[in-house]
Amino acid sequence: MHFADSLTAASKAKAPICVGLDPNIAKLPKGINKDPEGVLTFCKGIIDAVKDTAACVKPQMAYFELLGWEGMKVFWEVCAYAKEQGLLVIADGKRNDIGSTCDAYAEAYLNELSPIDALTVSPYLGSDGVKPFIERCMKNDKGIFVLVKTSNPSSGDLQDLPVGDEVVHEHMAQLVEGWGQECLGPETSFSCVGAVVGATYPEELKYLRTLMPHCPILIPGYGVQGGGAADCKPGFLADGTGAIVNSSRGIIFASTGKDWQDAARKAVQAMAKDLQLVL
Amino acid sequence: MHFADSLTAASKAKAPICVGLDPNIAKLPKGINKDPEGVLTFCKGIIDAVKDTAACVKPQMAYFELLGWEGMKVFWEVCAYAKEQGLLVIADGKRNDIGSTCDAYAEAYLNELSPIDALTVSPYLGSDGVKPFIERCMKNDKGIFVLVKTSNPSSGDLQDLPVGDEVVHEHMAQLVEGWGQECLGPETSFSCVGAVVGATYPEELKYLRTLMPHCPILIPGYGVQGGGAADCKPGFLADGTGAIVNSSRGIIFASTGKDWQDAARKAVQAMAKDLQLVL
Repeated sequence: MHFADSLTAASKAKAPICVGLDPNIAKLPKGINKDPEGVLTFCKGIIDAVKDTAACVKPQMAYFELLGWEGMKVFWEVCAYAKEQGLLVIADGKRNDIGSTCDAYAEAYLNELSPIDALTVSPYLGSDGVKPFIERCMKNDKGIFVLVKTSNPSSGDLQDLPVGDEVVHEHMAQLVEGWGQECLGPETSFSCVGAVVGATYPEELKYLRTLMPHCPILIPGYGVQGGGAADCKPGFLADGTGAIVNSSRGIIFASTGKDWQDAARKAVQAMAKDLQLVL
Repeated sequence: MHFADSLTAASKAKAPICVGLDPNIAKLPKGINKDPEGVLTFCKGIIDAVKDTAACVKPQMAYFELLGWEGMKVFWEVCAYAKEQGLLVIADGKRNDIGSTCDAYAEAYLNELSPIDALTVSPYLGSDGVKPFIERCMKNDKGIFVLVKTSNPSSGDLQDLPVGDEVVHEHMAQLVEGWGQECLGPETSFSCVGAVVGATYPEELKYLRTLMPHCPILIPGYGVQGGGAADCKPGFLADGTGAIVNSSRGIIFASTGKDWQDAARKAVQAMAKDLQLVL
């Protein structure tokens, strides 16, 4: 099934929530080993706790790469486990390169047999750095989320620079909408090319939603970073589709005591209610 | 020793050349296994062939990631081997993220014990996505190369957008120059924050050199991508320092027959002569 159709169906069946798996070993609950094996145990435990509520998980590759190749082995095991448990998997790698190298990244993460459903992509290189990913998306029912307006305080350094009568992130949004035109989902008309827009910039999110009518929007910045449900709402269409809200630390580290799984389950359920109230 | 001082010393002692290790398994020489073990054999063979001429090697992470965690194991083995053989190692990962995640990438690749000397970084996220790397550079004598004007045909999609009376890549160059102000090498006054500017845009390279007087410039695009030695020259200062020219396919795949090591050695020697003529 087309990635955007799968994402929409899962968001409707459960909640439009993505749980970020950022297994910072310094923060792992007591009793979990601070090593690759511990990270695997922790991520599987979080997946079990959130799988009935969240549509997706988003393993943050940096924390796995930090543990060397043993961490990357665990990364693939976590992706496979999440997939088995019925979750969509968005690998947060913000990969980017050109030509045959970009093709290698696309094949690495979005090949036919990969447990990964979608990958985040950084767009500084322009269309050469995006099209090889889109080819894999179309061939293998995968997706990408391109950084448009990110949630961090300094995102404006580049993204808010004025370009004529708009700003860089608005221009980028139009490129992203255009890149996705040839791969719309038959059920939803959403594209396999999504965008990342932070909940910390709700005004921008509202306008960017209009510039990218066919793009699923991945919204980070809910929770610890300061975004609330009302800030996320402008990313959704009136029917409550079209976006998925990510929370990482607020769920996975809701408790670092023995009750970490219960706390994560309660945190994701609370987030689902919080979003339901505004959507 | 400060990264920029090491880079300058190695470039003077040998040649200002970086050999890109892009081990696309489809292109490996006959007789080399098309698997992670073969990639290791191939990369070590290339390192042996070029180490007397090139200052650096640049393993392209995409090709290692394409082989899964086994590929990442080989990636680290290749980096360690290159370091042992006296080469500087630039990991080409174009990594980018924010806050604690960016810190995880910085620690993953630029920690004190890492065989990697420098990492390429993609700047769409702004200073939050760069500063954690710079902290590691200052602490551990490492470097980064930030994408400014890349060598690919579509680099202008974003990088050439007009911003006031300049364009995005010129604005980015000034940010990059500023980011490096606090970590200048005591011997050379070059910064630990370098820039990537493609040989395929020699006019831009000439102007960007003036905007970034303290930044070492990594120049891809020589050889197969179409850049010649004369196109690279504007990236250097008058004394022949300040830049390093990368060639990947033109050296590592100079022959895919039994003479692949000899062919790589001859190709890098020819490149050194070619650059020497213009510098």
